[in-house]
Amino acid sequence: MASTRARIAIDAMGGDHAPAEIVAGAIRAQEELDVEVLLVGDPQQIEASLKQHNSSHHIEIVPAEGTIEMEEEPLSALRRKPKASINVAMQLVKKKQADAVVSAGHSGAAMAAALLRLGRLPGIDRPAIGAVLPTIVPSKSVLILDVGANVDCRPKFLEQFAFMGSIYSQYVLGVDTPKVGLLNIGEEPSKGNDAALRTYQKLEENPNITFLGNAEGRDVLSGQFDVIVCDGFVGNILLKFAEAVGGVMVQILKEELPKGLHGKVGTALLKPNLERIKQRFDHAEHGGALLLGVEGICIITHGSSQAPSIFNAIRIAKEAVDNEVLERIQSQTRIAAAQATDGD
Amino acid sequence: MASTRARIAIDAMGGDHAPAEIVAGAIRAQEELDVEVLLVGDPQQIEASLKQHNSSHHIEIVPAEGTIEMEEEPLSALRRKPKASINVAMQLVKKKQADAVVSAGHSGAAMAAALLRLGRLPGIDRPAIGAVLPTIVPSKSVLILDVGANVDCRPKFLEQFAFMGSIYSQYVLGVDTPKVGLLNIGEEPSKGNDAALRTYQKLEENPNITFLGNAEGRDVLSGQFDVIVCDGFVGNILLKFAEAVGGVMVQILKEELPKGLHGKVGTALLKPNLERIKQRFDHAEHGGALLLGVEGICIITHGSSQAPSIFNAIRIAKEAVDNEVLERIQSQTRIAAAQATDGD
Repeated sequence: MASTRARIAIDAMGGDHAPAEIVAGAIRAQEELDVEVLLVGDPQQIEASLKQHNSSHHIEIVPAEGTIEMEEEPLSALRRKPKASINVAMQLVKKKQADAVVSAGHSGAAMAAALLRLGRLPGIDRPAIGAVLPTIVPSKSVLILDVGANVDCRPKFLEQFAFMGSIYSQYVLGVDTPKVGLLNIGEEPSKGNDAALRTYQKLEENPNITFLGNAEGRDVLSGQFDVIVCDGFVGNILLKFAEAVGGVMVQILKEELPKGLHGKVGTALLKPNLERIKQRFDHAEHGGALLLGVEGICIITHGSSQAPSIFNAIRIAKEAVDNEVLERIQSQTRIAAAQATDGD
Repeated sequence: MASTRARIAIDAMGGDHAPAEIVAGAIRAQEELDVEVLLVGDPQQIEASLKQHNSSHHIEIVPAEGTIEMEEEPLSALRRKPKASINVAMQLVKKKQADAVVSAGHSGAAMAAALLRLGRLPGIDRPAIGAVLPTIVPSKSVLILDVGANVDCRPKFLEQFAFMGSIYSQYVLGVDTPKVGLLNIGEEPSKGNDAALRTYQKLEENPNITFLGNAEGRDVLSGQFDVIVCDGFVGNILLKFAEAVGGVMVQILKEELPKGLHGKVGTALLKPNLERIKQRFDHAEHGGALLLGVEGICIITHGSSQAPSIFNAIRIAKEAVDNEVLERIQSQTRIAAAQATDGD
């Protein structure tokens, strides 16, 4: 990890628009960011995509064979296809030939490959997927985890999510003292199901996080919280809803704004402003989700990702590497373990 | 229930803007809808509010003493204050002097009062709160339940929600064959936590509902589903998030649209269209949540409800009464019970 430039292994074969859009995003990252990109996949297809661009930058290709398809069961497919692009990308991190992995492929397979090839961080029971959403406060975002790795969570898993999320928020998102919330159905400590009640207590007692209390659905985008923890079932539903809502809003604007003559003229005048609004809603601008708790940096982006999403995912990976997120979680987990009480 | 005009008991003392806004909404309902409104609460305060309006319509006042405060524990407060407005309103339905209750007060107290005073419908284990959201398809809405009554749900509760929701969707929302979805983290039947897997199977086997399969977060507002079932923990978080998102969007529009000279002119031209967009987002236009599964029609609206929300809640109550939702659930529950298999 001592390389001066972050080395990012990209699963060039994963996602609906692979490899063309993946390669396009990687080229832009290589040109605009101070990173070294490694494209993992079928050399012929990757080279054909590279030729579509007029880039003077050299990008290394790491050969792989095949990919995990969306309908495949992750674990067995990963074992059956050891040379699949996501397996090879993870191995690069394992062998310290790369610092991070970015994939738009089968997200379950990416997570399983990270667990199989890299393993969990010591002291972390379950890795979590974190997603960053914009809030109503300009330039303030919120990290939500877990958004899909664990459908059932014990209180101590959520406590670990809070802890990892706080480190990520502090060192990558630049929040001085990240405020943590527990996603719940009321503000009062007495609200929620049994798991929520017990998690509340654990978070309140943990000296390594700044726990603000329960976050209701309406608080998620309020900017009050920097990190919100929840189980992967609720988190996944919330994230997918939030992403879809952006599209719904843009659709409603498109339908309603141009109505009438004034509407048509007004909408024409507002074109650049509307474009900016669309960007604030658009998840492509916000990049991928982060797998926290494994022995490597892994960014998982949407299957539908095109070049801008891939570029952003690479930027996020670079920031996590440059800010030594892994090392900080590791060292602080060790400190926390020494202080920890058992149970749950 | 054989009265020709629906008689709606309104908890005039419940909510942040009681009684003034509650009374204002009730007056408008009495004037514009074919309903008989009963205002339950402190006669002096209600009369003072009535005097603010120039209505020729007579509205009956049913005296009550006190109200359940937000910080009170519902069950003990309801027992300590038998004459509280929400208790008296529920008693009116119990004694068949009203067909429905509308309250903007403590929602937990309204639910508990309904259970205490009216009781559950035969064959229903747990009442559920249903909320109607607009979808991306114009004039098509989706009913989500439960949005907060039950934080932990067994599969058979969700099956009952699907059944009650289908009847409401058909007879009040006017959907011929309501399509039911199970809120989950993936489309495939194999996705989700243990409760989701078992619920999927029950819904698939139930001959009285049209089960379309799992609904992901992104599908909630797509218009594909007419009824979406989930436990009250997920549902509450999703609903509160959805309601807040409308405000976030309006805020972003207000910030971004008027930027620059073209922005100012364009925004001025678009004023009426923007107002219409705001209305599509605004929950006040969509009225209250419905408590399904008790021996009466109960509409629970936001504590922040003002006159338009109260009016809408009364309209929803009237439609549920006029369309005999209770009687249909009761008779179809009896039929279903005869066909039912046990378990879960």
